[in-house]
Amino acid sequence: MIENRPVVGVVGATGVVGREILALLEERAFPAATVRVFASSRSARERLEFGGREVVVETLADGCFVGVDLAFFAAGAAVATRHAPEAVAAGAVVVDTSGAFAGDPTVPLVVPEIDAASLARHAGVVASPTSGTVQLALTLLPLAEAAGLRRVFVSTYQSASGAGRRAMDELREQTVALLSFREPTIEAFPRRLAFDCVPAVGQVMPEGDTRDERRLVAETRRVLALPDLAVGATCVQVPVFVGDAMAVHVETERPLSPAAALEALAGASWLSVEPDPEDFPTAHDAAGREEILVGRVRRDGDASGLALWCVADNVRRGAAGNAVRIAERLHLQGLGRH
Amino acid sequence: MIENRPVVGVVGATGVVGREILALLEERAFPAATVRVFASSRSARERLEFGGREVVVETLADGCFVGVDLAFFAAGAAVATRHAPEAVAAGAVVVDTSGAFAGDPTVPLVVPEIDAASLARHAGVVASPTSGTVQLALTLLPLAEAAGLRRVFVSTYQSASGAGRRAMDELREQTVALLSFREPTIEAFPRRLAFDCVPAVGQVMPEGDTRDERRLVAETRRVLALPDLAVGATCVQVPVFVGDAMAVHVETERPLSPAAALEALAGASWLSVEPDPEDFPTAHDAAGREEILVGRVRRDGDASGLALWCVADNVRRGAAGNAVRIAERLHLQGLGRH
Repeated sequence: MIENRPVVGVVGATGVVGREILALLEERAFPAATVRVFASSRSARERLEFGGREVVVETLADGCFVGVDLAFFAAGAAVATRHAPEAVAAGAVVVDTSGAFAGDPTVPLVVPEIDAASLARHAGVVASPTSGTVQLALTLLPLAEAAGLRRVFVSTYQSASGAGRRAMDELREQTVALLSFREPTIEAFPRRLAFDCVPAVGQVMPEGDTRDERRLVAETRRVLALPDLAVGATCVQVPVFVGDAMAVHVETERPLSPAAALEALAGASWLSVEPDPEDFPTAHDAAGREEILVGRVRRDGDASGLALWCVADNVRRGAAGNAVRIAERLHLQGLGRH
Repeated sequence: MIENRPVVGVVGATGVVGREILALLEERAFPAATVRVFASSRSARERLEFGGREVVVETLADGCFVGVDLAFFAAGAAVATRHAPEAVAAGAVVVDTSGAFAGDPTVPLVVPEIDAASLARHAGVVASPTSGTVQLALTLLPLAEAAGLRRVFVSTYQSASGAGRRAMDELREQTVALLSFREPTIEAFPRRLAFDCVPAVGQVMPEGDTRDERRLVAETRRVLALPDLAVGATCVQVPVFVGDAMAVHVETERPLSPAAALEALAGASWLSVEPDPEDFPTAHDAAGREEILVGRVRRDGDASGLALWCVADNVRRGAAGNAVRIAERLHLQGLGRH
């Protein structure tokens, strides 16, 4: 660390989320002494741009984290499980976006706008929730504070970017193939995504829910500190490149009119709320932005029910944006483990 | 009528639903004496094929329904409001798919598998529900019979075909434009649909819900004869050509395990139920079929909660298929008004 400026490492720097973390570190002027980028040997010697300079991708290897103060993990859970402990042993604080530690009660799972205080309890690793949790929890928080939450149902409309760059390429290639009357290739998704919706994001569990649905439910409860909240979730991949949308149905403990809900939502700095139901936001509107866009707030079902639609850039806001905000808070507290 | 075989008219015969009605009349060997096809003057003199012969499209005009015993209306609500009374006055029984009469309590709103008996009460017009209602009500019926329904939340993933052929063309054209780095044209939908989801199907009401959401809720209650059922709905247009999907979350009156739900659903002849949650059906699977496909049946939220995913060909099964089934039942009862 130079004058309290940490050496930052980004693992999985060539992936969709890793690149966005680099972009946000630069745009938000994160006070890094230097930024090092890591990836699997497949991407080694690739060059990325950061702060106007070229940065050479380093291969993940024994001892690679020596000197790193803060390490973002934006690779898969297997990479995080294997290499994050090495980074911690080398003295780094790890911010992991992979979900590898999201189920570990000793690892803080943090959305800083909701519970930055829990960062003080880390023992080397901080977990950043799945992008859907960030979006859902930040949308629900003002409603929870205004009227309490009894029950939440959410159906997602998730973009291909959540599955990585290869998945985005596949969506484009499948679309071109179908428009050219050729058979599309299916590799990144369990089924064809072009001009169809795939109602399973992540592995399907024997109980019938998927890994992503389970994470969304468990993480939302944990982030909002509402361990008994009834949450039902269906996670669906749609043929969109960037931006996740959610149809959210909420039953509150106390009645909350659409007007009062709009007022509560408008008070959250991280939301951009559209009160006119005809001016609904879409994934296209959210792409490239750091706010979560909320619209179509309306009465639903019965007196204690509300429905709304929210969209966010899953890469920029949900995944990378939350990880960088965690890092900013960690920096403010001197990264210190407690 | 020749030997009890009715003269059938199809209004809006050149549209997506009209053409499918013709196809089903032929495939299901509806005992028509003859089939006449009608459309606005724009489509007049177009030729359609029916039963291996060419049929010339007749223009909707004064007296055009003379001699027609059974008239399908597969055009918009404005056409039905104006011309259906003329058809009835000329002696025809009207089966309307436009929704023009769906809110009229004196007009039977019928899904024949659920309540064919109500057909005996028509006074010239029978309303066929919106395709989403057919799909949702037929999926819910076995659960309602097995355990009672307390609350239903549904989020839809609706295809462009529900908005007609021009909308399907626009989805294709927008997709090609975006892949060619050209600006897409937006006319059929309120927003760009290619590579995005549009969270509003039909006109947005001042209260924030849309015409389609309101119809889906009101019609589902009416068709299931559960006027007080709490139903929350979000209707979303997705970039898919044919086939509507629904993420359905159900709370039953009495606890219903996923296994018991699967058993109840499997007993319905109109459903094709996939018990393996990894073998989920998609819109692509449903396209061209007359069954509703159900999968991902699982526990949801709390003990009385179930989640499932269902898809159907909105044109073939939802719109045209229900109208033709209504006509088949009407024919069995001699079309007679009571």
